[in-house]
Amino acid sequence: MTYCVGMYLKDGLLFASDSRTNAGVDYITSYSKMYVFTPAPDRMFVILSAGNLAITQEIIHRIQRDLDYPGDGENFLSARYLFEATDYVSRISLEVQNKHYTTLQQAGVSGEVTLILGGQIEGQPHGLMMIYPQGNYIEASDKTPYLQIGETKYGKPVLDRLVHYELSLNDAARLALVSLTSTANSNITVGPPFELSTYQADQYQLSGRCTFNYNGNFLDQLEESWKLGLQQAFENLPSFEWELTPQSDQQMSFNECEFYQGQKSYQK
Amino acid sequence: MTYCVGMYLKDGLLFASDSRTNAGVDYITSYSKMYVFTPAPDRMFVILSAGNLAITQEIIHRIQRDLDYPGDGENFLSARYLFEATDYVSRISLEVQNKHYTTLQQAGVSGEVTLILGGQIEGQPHGLMMIYPQGNYIEASDKTPYLQIGETKYGKPVLDRLVHYELSLNDAARLALVSLTSTANSNITVGPPFELSTYQADQYQLSGRCTFNYNGNFLDQLEESWKLGLQQAFENLPSFEWELTPQSDQQMSFNECEFYQGQKSYQK
Repeated sequence: MTYCVGMYLKDGLLFASDSRTNAGVDYITSYSKMYVFTPAPDRMFVILSAGNLAITQEIIHRIQRDLDYPGDGENFLSARYLFEATDYVSRISLEVQNKHYTTLQQAGVSGEVTLILGGQIEGQPHGLMMIYPQGNYIEASDKTPYLQIGETKYGKPVLDRLVHYELSLNDAARLALVSLTSTANSNITVGPPFELSTYQADQYQLSGRCTFNYNGNFLDQLEESWKLGLQQAFENLPSFEWELTPQSDQQMSFNECEFYQGQKSYQK
Repeated sequence: MTYCVGMYLKDGLLFASDSRTNAGVDYITSYSKMYVFTPAPDRMFVILSAGNLAITQEIIHRIQRDLDYPGDGENFLSARYLFEATDYVSRISLEVQNKHYTTLQQAGVSGEVTLILGGQIEGQPHGLMMIYPQGNYIEASDKTPYLQIGETKYGKPVLDRLVHYELSLNDAARLALVSLTSTANSNITVGPPFELSTYQADQYQLSGRCTFNYNGNFLDQLEESWKLGLQQAFENLPSFEWELTPQSDQQMSFNECEFYQGQKSYQK
């Protein structure tokens, strides 16, 4: 499938995505799902995509064409607010999905696309949005500082436990990688290379852009460190009451548990 | 929804389930999804259920009725193998699902039920099976030592990282609780009380049965300990190369990353 996550932080924005695409078991390959637009010195946008790859790519082509041949319509250059930029992308997404809908439906294939769009326009605060396939969109906030698209469930618990609005961009990047690798370990349709982009507020361009793979470098170290950390956390979990009580052959009752050591009784 | 997990271990079996049921937002309540049968001194079975609660409960009633009024057909007393017991439960599951199928379908409600069945019959090894709604079933093995049903994705990464066939029953119990609480924290349709049963091989009855809730006792300690452990694991993650390099205003290239600190360039 895909897994992408965006984080909305006090310091800026974090974008992370996998790159495995899956058009059936004979055709699993690798495409970037992260698209960066810096069309003028006063604005920057990043799009992360999940869903039908062909539809996504056509959307990106159209956005680029509107920048090369502006015309009268809206585009990334004319937007005065992030929500206007989001509205614009949302309209293109609907157009392209509708264009291909009938033929895809006949083939039993979904043309749906879900997008994360983040960025900043000068004079406005930075922000992060999620555009549903139906075209409506929601915004991240300091209380909901992350958005996920694609195969989201495996990677969500670690975000719920550790993400918060004041996280530094570097910590956010580490957290996103843990969320991505946890997902990839548990679901074969999500895989490396993993792309990461960091954006510091009010800079109007990315501060960093990375591609990580399991090649003996950073990602392997991160994976190894996290595994050890989890093992340690697991070993430090508290003992159950009965582990601290000498074993006996009698039934033992604790606050929350019944024990039947050695007792041969049967009950339905 | 539901979340249940069963583990097949060298030492025996571990069963864990949540108890939140959800028939729409006005009717969220609590029912056990763990059913224990010790119908004779030489056999023990545990069923965990996910899916349509009413269908599940009717299945359980029928199983109990077949024990009270054995007749000529198969039941838990006549099975010579765990797979025969599984086959029996599978047939009842299909009967009850089919009985209600038409009316449920008209209402747009799913009557599907997925079950985990574990246990042991004397003379046979202990085992763990998963019965699909369609009636076919798979078995856990030392290479696939856990089975999950219901809302499985949130709780899977921690199992993938830590479960293995040689895990002790107590460690398995802790791991199951972490998997359950991680799921409950990220998905509101899964919730406490959490039930846990342990079965030591060749005993033909449970060794322990527990019910945990967030009431200031064990579960809170476990949750607190795991949170701290994760925080520690997170803080011990390696630094990125650029965090170890003095900042500069120039573009910096690392093995896997590009940095644009201070550089005002724009590119599409």
